Amino acid sequence: MAAPSVAVDNLNPKVLKCEYAVRGEIVIHAQRLQQQLQTQPGSLPFDEILYCNIGNPQSLGQQPVTFFREVLALCDHPCLLDRAETKSLFSADAISRATTILASIPGRATGAYSHSQGIKGLRDAIAAGIASRDGYPANADDIFLTDGASPGVHMMMQLLIRNEKDGILCPIPQYPLYSASIALHGGALVPYYLNESTGWGLEISDLKKQLEDARSKGIDVRALVVINPGNPTGQVLAEENQRDIVKFCKNEGLVLLADEVYQENIYVDNKKFNSFKKIARSMGYNEDDLPLVSFQSVSKGYYGECGKRGGYMEITGFSAPVREQIYKVASVNLCSNITGQILASLVMNPPKAGDASYASYKAEKDGILQSLARRAKALEDAFNNLEGITCNKTEGAMYLFPQLLLPRKAIEAAKAANKAPDAFYALRLLESTGIVVVPGSGFGQVPGTWHIRCTILPQEEKIPAIITRFKTFHESFMAAYRD
Amino acid sequence: MAAPSVAVDNLNPKVLKCEYAVRGEIVIHAQRLQQQLQTQPGSLPFDEILYCNIGNPQSLGQQPVTFFREVLALCDHPCLLDRAETKSLFSADAISRATTILASIPGRATGAYSHSQGIKGLRDAIAAGIASRDGYPANADDIFLTDGASPGVHMMMQLLIRNEKDGILCPIPQYPLYSASIALHGGALVPYYLNESTGWGLEISDLKKQLEDARSKGIDVRALVVINPGNPTGQVLAEENQRDIVKFCKNEGLVLLADEVYQENIYVDNKKFNSFKKIARSMGYNEDDLPLVSFQSVSKGYYGECGKRGGYMEITGFSAPVREQIYKVASVNLCSNITGQILASLVMNPPKAGDASYASYKAEKDGILQSLARRAKALEDAFNNLEGITCNKTEGAMYLFPQLLLPRKAIEAAKAANKAPDAFYALRLLESTGIVVVPGSGFGQVPGTWHIRCTILPQEEKIPAIITRFKTFHESFMAAYRD
Repeated sequence: MAAPSVAVDNLNPKVLKCEYAVRGEIVIHAQRLQQQLQTQPGSLPFDEILYCNIGNPQSLGQQPVTFFREVLALCDHPCLLDRAETKSLFSADAISRATTILASIPGRATGAYSHSQGIKGLRDAIAAGIASRDGYPANADDIFLTDGASPGVHMMMQLLIRNEKDGILCPIPQYPLYSASIALHGGALVPYYLNESTGWGLEISDLKKQLEDARSKGIDVRALVVINPGNPTGQVLAEENQRDIVKFCKNEGLVLLADEVYQENIYVDNKKFNSFKKIARSMGYNEDDLPLVSFQSVSKGYYGECGKRGGYMEITGFSAPVREQIYKVASVNLCSNITGQILASLVMNPPKAGDASYASYKAEKDGILQSLARRAKALEDAFNNLEGITCNKTEGAMYLFPQLLLPRKAIEAAKAANKAPDAFYALRLLESTGIVVVPGSGFGQVPGTWHIRCTILPQEEKIPAIITRFKTFHESFMAAYRD
Repeated sequence: MAAPSVAVDNLNPKVLKCEYAVRGEIVIHAQRLQQQLQTQPGSLPFDEILYCNIGNPQSLGQQPVTFFREVLALCDHPCLLDRAETKSLFSADAISRATTILASIPGRATGAYSHSQGIKGLRDAIAAGIASRDGYPANADDIFLTDGASPGVHMMMQLLIRNEKDGILCPIPQYPLYSASIALHGGALVPYYLNESTGWGLEISDLKKQLEDARSKGIDVRALVVINPGNPTGQVLAEENQRDIVKFCKNEGLVLLADEVYQENIYVDNKKFNSFKKIARSMGYNEDDLPLVSFQSVSKGYYGECGKRGGYMEITGFSAPVREQIYKVASVNLCSNITGQILASLVMNPPKAGDASYASYKAEKDGILQSLARRAKALEDAFNNLEGITCNKTEGAMYLFPQLLLPRKAIEAAKAANKAPDAFYALRLLESTGIVVVPGSGFGQVPGTWHIRCTILPQEEKIPAIITRFKTFHESFMAAYRD
């Protein structure tokens, strides 16, 4: 009998090395428990699985923004625009927006492959949205529409990483898309640590130190990833800090990869979102000074349209021959999905005051964002009220990243079970309460510290019960392992 | 002044090596000419660019299937289902299908990330469609929904290719997604030649020879790509030939990567589509005998929904640990877009006799497929009537791949212009007529032969004028370069 032609030990080792905890072991176990709840109701100490592992708002009951969905439905089935009934079913501005969008698509063909960067008219709308957000010009030729932000990140890693001596500076903790993508493309993740004690501050001195360390080991550091607002930290960078980062990238010749997918998710009055492009331009830096990529997605914000897989990258500061290579890689996959492209244009150009939908749109948007702010605060307070847990403020994004000060006995029990202590804790939490969180080890953390990432997304009316379930579990966990 | 941190000479060399002619130089030139037509009408010897370079039916005026779009619109904006007007705007079976689909999505949330393989209920529908097509069982757990077929192909290449000593057997000519993807992942394309003189027949003896050649050079050949119906050849494999291929893969321990995206596109009575899985099962081979991946897409067939980016791969014959790795890679990108997922389920489970939409659905489907058959025949005849062109029959898919017997003087002129002779011809054709085709060199061909790939997709009423334009150009080209 011949050995199987394909086995784990003859797969691409880069694939084997890649890890993605957000949908890793804990989540697979949760899916099993969910099936058990269906086939054997009452067999577990809870009656539903609560997925707090992933920023997936609509899976937890968040409703889509009506205007966006009206436009999508009309673009999917344009004959509706010729029917009288449509006027009573759809808002007037959704009808006119769909008409405008269809007119910008050659042949009104929403079922055709588009230009590999995306439909020109939609890129124009996005560029106008960026310009109005930043107060600096933006160019449709710089926009590459993508199926969510992830394919854009992969594309840039594929472009920049030649071998294991090419490094990418990434925050620790980081969103594991970055570690996974660097592993898949065979590069080196060069970590820089966010400072938990200053609210996950980014310190240029640490950046410099890590860069020099990596260079001394022969690593060619090519780019710096910044996630702002932060995932998993929930931190929003101060403008001053952003200026320092821009200057650092310029001085060190690094590409700045700016993950800005949470740009609409800010929950505190003393912070606001500034794009890195705006910061760079405000410092007088132009295209010649800094290669910069800004990633945006339709999955986050108040819209949370994860399943539509829409997003874009805005690419500035690259030479024409490099841009041709980016275009070529984009063209191998033909184009991103048109529904996602349309949605990306809507997100960057939503209804304005005076539009028929504006009042209801604004009520939906404000309702979601204000509720998210309240949920973040309630969960943060709850975590901080528990023995052995400290939790920084969630200024933005969709997550809390509390630190667990675990008793020595719990750490030993985890070791005996061959788990990281935070994975051990998260598994126990799941099995006791049905709450799914991601262990901090999936994001990276200062060695010897333990965290979990928990989203702020469960529906608001469920939060008090979740807090109670969590508190009961945590107290019994601490009681069981108290030193 | 420091050197730019990112320049072509410090990009990933695999990216530089990758080529994708379907959207390459000729197409970029065509886009420039199209802009010129807009800014300076009358400045070129034609008044429109006719894109015959890519299988993109709706860009050339093909209308989407009404039932599919009705269901998509209802799933995008489910509140429509609660309104009385909807009954007069949508067919009854589209309403009931959308209701069923929404019920299969947790929380009816079409805006949520799904399971990384795709929504379970949709995978069930697809598996049922495969089982009814093949007469052999199919399993929803084997289905991975993807954003079109291309990301599935990339995923398999990423899994199988470790380094430049891992080879993938590919037909020549081939669809350049394969050569591009192998280049991007750093593997070796091991060519096998389709025999033009037997209607692009696939000969096992040539497969064996190429495999042994590659092995003698130290290449570990891991998989065989077969495109059936063929792209760019338009050939449909005979059942006997498929059996030989299956036996060959089993005996040689190769993964069979079956590109079956044109399974609905068959234009001749004496051929029918057989999936490789059906063939393998009919030979008594089961999962233990053969690792097999079947790629399907919503972009082709009679539906042609390229812009929706839907598709799936059906993966059988891989061990559980290998499947876990495939799942992990899929999970890093979270999921494919839900609109494409829904469409993939519709394509594999269209209206049936007795459904309210069946008659109109069938009329639309038959109308498109019969017209494509007539267009293929008309273009094939036209090519064969030209001096120095021979063209095999298009039995399936969406392309003609005629051979150009170019005069020596034309070949010299091409050389002087630093172009491959077929690229030179295609460029002249574009500049004289506005017709965009892809040179055979983009697909691979027997050295010293020259071809072009031309789609059969221009609307039927335009075909006579296209033939006239083509004939006029070709005659003057031949006259100019006659030896």
